[in-house]
Amino acid sequence: MHSKKIINAPDRLIPEIMEGLVLASHGSLVPVEGADALIRADMPDDKVALVIGGGSGHEPMYTAYVGDGLADASILGNIFAAPTPDHILAAIKAADRGKGVLLVYGNYAGDNMNFDIASEMAEAEGLRVRTVRVMDDVAVPRHEDRRGIGGAFYQVKVAGTACREASTLEEAAARVEHARENLRTLGVAVSAGSMPETGEPTFSLGPDELEIGMGAHGEPGVERRKMMSAQDLAREMTTLLVDDLPYRSGDRVAILFNNLGATTMMELLIVNRTVRSELEARGIECVRTDMGHYLTCQEMQGFSLTLIKLDDTLEADLAAPCRSIGYSQGA
Amino acid sequence: MHSKKIINAPDRLIPEIMEGLVLASHGSLVPVEGADALIRADMPDDKVALVIGGGSGHEPMYTAYVGDGLADASILGNIFAAPTPDHILAAIKAADRGKGVLLVYGNYAGDNMNFDIASEMAEAEGLRVRTVRVMDDVAVPRHEDRRGIGGAFYQVKVAGTACREASTLEEAAARVEHARENLRTLGVAVSAGSMPETGEPTFSLGPDELEIGMGAHGEPGVERRKMMSAQDLAREMTTLLVDDLPYRSGDRVAILFNNLGATTMMELLIVNRTVRSELEARGIECVRTDMGHYLTCQEMQGFSLTLIKLDDTLEADLAAPCRSIGYSQGA
Repeated sequence: MHSKKIINAPDRLIPEIMEGLVLASHGSLVPVEGADALIRADMPDDKVALVIGGGSGHEPMYTAYVGDGLADASILGNIFAAPTPDHILAAIKAADRGKGVLLVYGNYAGDNMNFDIASEMAEAEGLRVRTVRVMDDVAVPRHEDRRGIGGAFYQVKVAGTACREASTLEEAAARVEHARENLRTLGVAVSAGSMPETGEPTFSLGPDELEIGMGAHGEPGVERRKMMSAQDLAREMTTLLVDDLPYRSGDRVAILFNNLGATTMMELLIVNRTVRSELEARGIECVRTDMGHYLTCQEMQGFSLTLIKLDDTLEADLAAPCRSIGYSQGA
Repeated sequence: MHSKKIINAPDRLIPEIMEGLVLASHGSLVPVEGADALIRADMPDDKVALVIGGGSGHEPMYTAYVGDGLADASILGNIFAAPTPDHILAAIKAADRGKGVLLVYGNYAGDNMNFDIASEMAEAEGLRVRTVRVMDDVAVPRHEDRRGIGGAFYQVKVAGTACREASTLEEAAARVEHARENLRTLGVAVSAGSMPETGEPTFSLGPDELEIGMGAHGEPGVERRKMMSAQDLAREMTTLLVDDLPYRSGDRVAILFNNLGATTMMELLIVNRTVRSELEARGIECVRTDMGHYLTCQEMQGFSLTLIKLDDTLEADLAAPCRSIGYSQGA
């Protein structure tokens, strides 16, 4: 069955998303001239710039995370498509304040190519650029091929704090690399989201199936399985995640539950019970929990579970105040 | 088709939701003895208490909104069912600090009856209780019959600030009544959520239909219509809302987009364009926008649109810092 979405014209999605964001920002976000990108209106003059971006259709990621303590600018690609190099370059140039630009985006072939081209063009113009791709998806065996999924929120949050506080681009990049080394995510889907242009689902699962490790666009996962209880699913996911880094007894972690779209918070709360008991059984202490819609895939039913191993710096980076359309917290 | 939900046992939903919330709160929420209710662990000793609650299945409303600057305690009914008087009474007694207890909950027959019984029992024990029901749904013609829907978040937010700041129960109640007088909401659904115990949808809409004014559990609305563009839908909804209070030229408002479940933020951003231009055309100024999942109905696809007419006090009440599992913001 085709999905029912409340839109206007399929070929006007990106400009209308941008317009909706600018209006919802009440003056704190403005368009970057000549690009599908938004930038903070109140960006300070002396900071390392943080530029993020990626395919649209995953809202609030990326562009609803532009604001104080988060990103300075974000580029919007078409639905599930990388932004183009000229738009990325425009955002880099608009955000640079002379202290360099840190780029954070998901590790996908199209994004890598286009952000790399834009970086080279920026460097040819004398700007300094560093990149720390999100590559948290443990469903992909080879580390260098890992996709960026729900853990992107923690990486953007740490990057936002680091770029606000760091005195150099290199220091900010090192803090975000440190976060990435301690960050792992695994997703699960029980039903697909659909392409807003066509209403067609991005994959298909049987009425009694789920897929562990499904990517944010429906890419193949670890294993297709029969529907299972929250407890059994949470045990399997936690084991796969913990064994990957691995997280060890005595570690202190934060957990991020990223709702991919149509899953209920009720389900995530029920899953949380078993994730916590599984961590506790391994001597891993959870000190922070974030639960919500951070990086969605339209109306996909499913969620991802992220663990980040904390030290005092990373814990403070996550706790630091920030303000944006998509996420805010106080001191 | 039956829905696929990640749960354990249908008859264990409520205790497992509660357990998930307590774990996600990291010590800031504790159970109320003998009741399906949670209370702040750090509740100050000298404040007017705010107790909220209602049927479960609408998460994050109500219980994820317990925390500093929001509610002090919340009672969880069964899925879409009012909490029972004994549980409500236990929460009232646990939260009272001698300055009285304000009750905020949705205007539904079962909730009204059970909260009223509990209030009488509390008063018989010498406690002081006041009630300000949420009744924001303009789809219901008779004002006294209006259901409490997405605007509940704004009413709880104002109540949280008022109960933190007010020196008497009467003053807090008057501030929340003032918010309610200026608050109106209208919902729309394009597809149903399902009962987690059975997987059955709560209503049915044709593949090309939507319903304006649908209640948070699928109660009948204003009109069943053919699917329409975001622009046409936003025009109709804004007109129905604005004409109800009515909101007038020169008014200053905040807008709340409440995602009922499976709708995308992309759609809400696109709808926001037209809501804003419709308000602007009427001389109504929007100074704040909130967009997210506040009061859901499982995986229902649809949203509600809330307007609240602001004065300086209400604007400050909404902007005041708060912290909870479901919503946080800084100063």
